[in-house]
Amino acid sequence: MGGDHGPPVVVAAIARDAAEWRAKGVRFLLHGDQARLDAELARTPEAKALCEVRHTDLVIAGDEKPAQAMRRGKGSSMWNAVASVDQGESHAAVSAGNTGALMAISKLILRMMADLERPALVATWPNAKGYCSVLDVGANIDCDAQRLVEFAIMGEAFHRAVHSAASPTVGLLNVGSEEQKGHEEVREAHKLLRESGVKLNYVGFVEGDGIAKGAADVIVTDGFTGNVALKTTEGVARFLRDEIRGALTASWVSRMGGMIAAGALRKMFARLDPPDGAPLLGLNGIVVKCHGSAEAKGFAAGIHVAVNLAQSQYASEIERNLQQLTKALAEPATTEGAASEKIG
Amino acid sequence: MGGDHGPPVVVAAIARDAAEWRAKGVRFLLHGDQARLDAELARTPEAKALCEVRHTDLVIAGDEKPAQAMRRGKGSSMWNAVASVDQGESHAAVSAGNTGALMAISKLILRMMADLERPALVATWPNAKGYCSVLDVGANIDCDAQRLVEFAIMGEAFHRAVHSAASPTVGLLNVGSEEQKGHEEVREAHKLLRESGVKLNYVGFVEGDGIAKGAADVIVTDGFTGNVALKTTEGVARFLRDEIRGALTASWVSRMGGMIAAGALRKMFARLDPPDGAPLLGLNGIVVKCHGSAEAKGFAAGIHVAVNLAQSQYASEIERNLQQLTKALAEPATTEGAASEKIG
Repeated sequence: MGGDHGPPVVVAAIARDAAEWRAKGVRFLLHGDQARLDAELARTPEAKALCEVRHTDLVIAGDEKPAQAMRRGKGSSMWNAVASVDQGESHAAVSAGNTGALMAISKLILRMMADLERPALVATWPNAKGYCSVLDVGANIDCDAQRLVEFAIMGEAFHRAVHSAASPTVGLLNVGSEEQKGHEEVREAHKLLRESGVKLNYVGFVEGDGIAKGAADVIVTDGFTGNVALKTTEGVARFLRDEIRGALTASWVSRMGGMIAAGALRKMFARLDPPDGAPLLGLNGIVVKCHGSAEAKGFAAGIHVAVNLAQSQYASEIERNLQQLTKALAEPATTEGAASEKIG
Repeated sequence: MGGDHGPPVVVAAIARDAAEWRAKGVRFLLHGDQARLDAELARTPEAKALCEVRHTDLVIAGDEKPAQAMRRGKGSSMWNAVASVDQGESHAAVSAGNTGALMAISKLILRMMADLERPALVATWPNAKGYCSVLDVGANIDCDAQRLVEFAIMGEAFHRAVHSAASPTVGLLNVGSEEQKGHEEVREAHKLLRESGVKLNYVGFVEGDGIAKGAADVIVTDGFTGNVALKTTEGVARFLRDEIRGALTASWVSRMGGMIAAGALRKMFARLDPPDGAPLLGLNGIVVKCHGSAEAKGFAAGIHVAVNLAQSQYASEIERNLQQLTKALAEPATTEGAASEKIG
């Protein structure tokens, strides 16, 4: 029921790639208003064959505060979708609804597998080599070394499952590439990633310009820095787009040039819009968030992320690495005294 | 003697805007190799009339470590230029040399006026309204609330002097605009900027995308976040430029369009290259750093920054606001108990 469009987009997304879902054995539980959902399904038999509707009247509004959603959300479509993952009735939940509410309800029902304030959010950024995954761009503002390593573990498993990379490289965002650069947390995380025995293809520190260069497939940072960097870049990209549009309509000559090159430019800008679907990482269960404004294509991309995660070894890989991290932190010898003591 | 080009660029920069320097009463002390500088000046009488050469053989190399530069740099061209500011013989120093060495030597000779690890660096970013000043993008990694407020004070005075804005707006970079957002340091700085009585046109929290939108003229953040945001954006802008170039050369049709629109695109990209010349803020004296690769135009832009700062009330404005901040921090009542105690 969530997002700007609700049922029409969700059902259209299922119909869109119905052949693929059938081939992969994917089936859908649709939580929400039975009448509205049935009406949509009646128009798309290819979707109807894959879906089962679970009726509820209650819907979390787009502007509801997370605390309010947790208190009054029980039995809503969002709540029931997440609860069905907890009850083992479904393997993943996908929503285009209220992000704060989805985070709060998911955390409440599924609980966190790692020691995070909130689920971590991954941003998918286009780069010179394809796409990279940057996390946390969400709301884990204060991050110690352990949290940063947990992001690395979860982001790597996500990237592997979704971008089918065999051994994605992992980098830590910093202000320089030398060992002594950055603040204490990032230096300790660097040491842990090197020495704690977690199974990751860790390549060391990456500077800001390394994101676009493709210096690593998975780039790890705290939620404050990640959020600022993501939003700053989005702002600059939008600004550049407007400036280019301005430049290409400034005179009839440039307008003509712009019209002639329009196809190529459109293709380029499309590549810059990364695919939709960001998992809430760190939960005991798979929950994927799509943009509120997602159309059928975007929502289908979110379903693909959920299916890829559900059909991969994602959860067990994360668990194995988290256990190794816990073990390393409990044994000061592994990470050489001082550093791990500070972390504990 | 510094930068990739040394004397030819420095002298050409002076010659380039000689009429303006004369009109403003600006004169130059050139520190470096007398023979090389004289040879350059002999070719440009308009520059020669404004300059006096102070000979030294010693030059700080581009790859010299700051600590080494401090130990062995005495009597070098960079050292002497900064020392002449300290001795009141000149009003400002401009250099395209080794940044780390310039920071270390300036700090050693001029000392810091505020409680910073190192001088703060300002980045000038193009935005929808013109340019904004973002600081610190340098090396003050760990910043408490007091430091952030000091950046605000210094950045505002810089922006006013250099961009001739009567009352530039000041914003604090954060992950949201509500009071309770962000980490402790940024929330405390917000409170101080509101309540400590420093004379600034403070507009509150600004999110990352506010930089390109022009949400504030001066945007304040810690050196870690600022450095990551700046480098990430530089990387993305370079990536976009390459993608546009790629799109406009992908086929003969788009190539034709690109050629026709080339003039407009070039003009746009030129606007995206902000003017050169970043002051090292927080020193008892004016030191301006130009890019190592600066040509005459860029080095002249650095001189303009130095002249604008030297001919403004820059230093006394900063001092007045810093004194007010110190007073507010010493009187817990002014900023209401808890917050200011933590800061102290």
